[in-house]
Amino acid sequence: MASRQFEPPSGTRDFLARDLRAREHVFSVIRGVFERYGFEPLQTPAFERLETLTGKYGDEGDKLIFKILRRGEHEASGEADLALRYDMTVPLARVVAAYGSQLPTPYKRYAMGPVWRADRPGRGRFREFTQCDVDVVGSTSPLADAEVICAAADALDAAGVPGFQVLVNSRQALSGLLEVYGVPAGVGGGVLITLDKLDKLDPDAVTRELADARSLDAGIAATLVSDLTAEDAVERMRTMLKDSDSGRAGLAGIDRFLELAGPTVGTARIAFTPRLVRGLDYYTGVIFEVVAVGMPGSIASGGRYDHLIAALGGPDVPACGVSLGVERIIGLLGDDSGSGQRLDVAVMVMDENSAATVMEFGGSLRHAGLRAEIYLGSSRKLARQLKWAADKRARYAVIYGQQEQSTGMVTVRDMDSGQQTQVPAGQLAAHLRERRAAPREES
Amino acid sequence: MASRQFEPPSGTRDFLARDLRAREHVFSVIRGVFERYGFEPLQTPAFERLETLTGKYGDEGDKLIFKILRRGEHEASGEADLALRYDMTVPLARVVAAYGSQLPTPYKRYAMGPVWRADRPGRGRFREFTQCDVDVVGSTSPLADAEVICAAADALDAAGVPGFQVLVNSRQALSGLLEVYGVPAGVGGGVLITLDKLDKLDPDAVTRELADARSLDAGIAATLVSDLTAEDAVERMRTMLKDSDSGRAGLAGIDRFLELAGPTVGTARIAFTPRLVRGLDYYTGVIFEVVAVGMPGSIASGGRYDHLIAALGGPDVPACGVSLGVERIIGLLGDDSGSGQRLDVAVMVMDENSAATVMEFGGSLRHAGLRAEIYLGSSRKLARQLKWAADKRARYAVIYGQQEQSTGMVTVRDMDSGQQTQVPAGQLAAHLRERRAAPREES
Repeated sequence: MASRQFEPPSGTRDFLARDLRAREHVFSVIRGVFERYGFEPLQTPAFERLETLTGKYGDEGDKLIFKILRRGEHEASGEADLALRYDMTVPLARVVAAYGSQLPTPYKRYAMGPVWRADRPGRGRFREFTQCDVDVVGSTSPLADAEVICAAADALDAAGVPGFQVLVNSRQALSGLLEVYGVPAGVGGGVLITLDKLDKLDPDAVTRELADARSLDAGIAATLVSDLTAEDAVERMRTMLKDSDSGRAGLAGIDRFLELAGPTVGTARIAFTPRLVRGLDYYTGVIFEVVAVGMPGSIASGGRYDHLIAALGGPDVPACGVSLGVERIIGLLGDDSGSGQRLDVAVMVMDENSAATVMEFGGSLRHAGLRAEIYLGSSRKLARQLKWAADKRARYAVIYGQQEQSTGMVTVRDMDSGQQTQVPAGQLAAHLRERRAAPREES
Repeated sequence: MASRQFEPPSGTRDFLARDLRAREHVFSVIRGVFERYGFEPLQTPAFERLETLTGKYGDEGDKLIFKILRRGEHEASGEADLALRYDMTVPLARVVAAYGSQLPTPYKRYAMGPVWRADRPGRGRFREFTQCDVDVVGSTSPLADAEVICAAADALDAAGVPGFQVLVNSRQALSGLLEVYGVPAGVGGGVLITLDKLDKLDPDAVTRELADARSLDAGIAATLVSDLTAEDAVERMRTMLKDSDSGRAGLAGIDRFLELAGPTVGTARIAFTPRLVRGLDYYTGVIFEVVAVGMPGSIASGGRYDHLIAALGGPDVPACGVSLGVERIIGLLGDDSGSGQRLDVAVMVMDENSAATVMEFGGSLRHAGLRAEIYLGSSRKLARQLKWAADKRARYAVIYGQQEQSTGMVTVRDMDSGQQTQVPAGQLAAHLRERRAAPREES
């Protein structure tokens, strides 16, 4: 690592070839799935007008917005007029407002790109990171909710994420839960925020927080936590929720969602999960979260949020969507993908006179679709250049020395076996294309 | 168009699906060429520390940098500590300084991504636009210079840019030119800046500017301009430059470059062009520019700049590179690419009972690699849904109504011919995959 002066700014990363290719591979696989579902890509600018963003993410969120100083004569004012994109949803609301009639109905879009948040950088937490959102705007159909989770699950499968589970609940079921357990209306919101911690804290701690911080009757708190963490929590909740209109509506919505999404997601991988809350209060229907074995937190989450677009400045249209935690997914997949790329052909330069011919070899190899590099160093020693070819993990080296030049042949060296073959110069590209296409033990 | 409030910020653009796909298609074709040459991708953060950027682009450039306000308690200071990336070269210099020993030698990298400049927005001039740079850092070989122009020309060909020409000159040849025409050393820089206008202004205007603004002897100015714009300018220059050491060295470098790059670029498309100057004074060797028929200005440019990396804060390493004007290239190509994407299958939803089965159809079609959309509207009328399928430019519509449900068959409608086929439900995906793969008149 170099001195601090040359590091990227705090919380950001430089991606060199290996990491970048691994990331791009995952992104491209995910994009491919969304495209098959008929979602359209959308790309909005890196920055928005400041007033488009402020007030949309709560007080805490507002503090994390990167603001851009006004320019020219206004720079001295110290005021900002623009701000870096904080998420993909506010730009979506603006786009729906701006292009409403030009967009298909429903508007099924995905967005994948960087967002910026001035969070304290930490392990796995960055100030510049990629977000990946899939949303359906303008449909109330339960098929739309099912499609977004199916697209997310297919994307996770395609990316190779092992052992994930989809947890499902709904806003109505949670309202029903508060109702049937006798939670007073005034504390319901706080109670849900505390219940959301059941996946992190132990049940007793959650019970105490409900009684202390949320002023919930201690008996109600204990029953609620005990029922939600029981082995048969789902059965208990199904029974309890039947006693409330909202609870019954919630259950019906959840069951329809499970029926529609189950076959694609895999029925063993998706289940009603009564303790799932999702902290954000903009959800209006089904909510879900995808968790992976051995990974705290979620790798995808979403639900229906019918009035959010309006609250963010767009028209009042129904919508649902899912956000994939692509940075966590990439972390989960590790270093495996994309690292296997070998150079097909390393072309040696044995003397200055043959350099133009060697350039032509390079051109014909690339036109044949092969990845070919020409030696750009100053040494004219074969051993030195072969070492370079080996460092590059080249499959073949092409040598065009004095002897080859006098006979019009080219020497092709298999860098794995060391075996050398003479090929007429004019047939080099065809010869190597054919050999590369032939089956080998390794790729 | 919507009200101004919902437009993207001045000088930036929203890319909806059609435009975005056309752009991504061009980017991906260009990336493919660079990869075949063995260039590695590099991605640096959207912002750098302010001190990394300031002072690197001259006074005019500094004014165009988007600066990011400090955060938290420091926000009130009105000071900036970060700034949006202005080009790809300063981040390259930082990366070479930071990771030197971890990078291959030479380091052949490409970078393609947005940069931000607070320029006055205008026709074809944006504040957020994509830059695409290919550079070789750490090689003095003329093969490196040749490779970058070959990669650029191959990329332009692959992208489908019609009728382009590569203009070539060199710093040494330009020094020789000043010498042999007797231009005093003190005014040489200014004279070159004025000569650079020969492709825009008429010769008399350039001659006048040389005499007036650059204080060049009127006779020298007239001869210089007349020789550079003569039909046999190349021959005149070749003869003149032989009288100067610098001129002879320049000619030798240019001829070597033409010899190495000519066969790949096409010898008819690349030529020594004595009046090519390139305004930027950091070039140290060969310089070149790609121009396209019917397009003012250049669509790519570059050359050798052996001390620029050091001047930008990196180590003193030789380097050469080319920058592709991808925004101009996309403008040149127009709307043709990427717009032809049709939906493969539109899946109808005839009643609520069959919705789960219809979701399964969608799943199997997508797993077969087909682009399939399920109708998410509320209408259950066939005519309405067929209109949606037609709007989506679907090739096939899949209908699963009462009659089909009772027989276990699915109706597949060819949306172009109107012809309908009955297919067993379990064979739907295989059937449509096969039909799509069959040859058709249109794609």
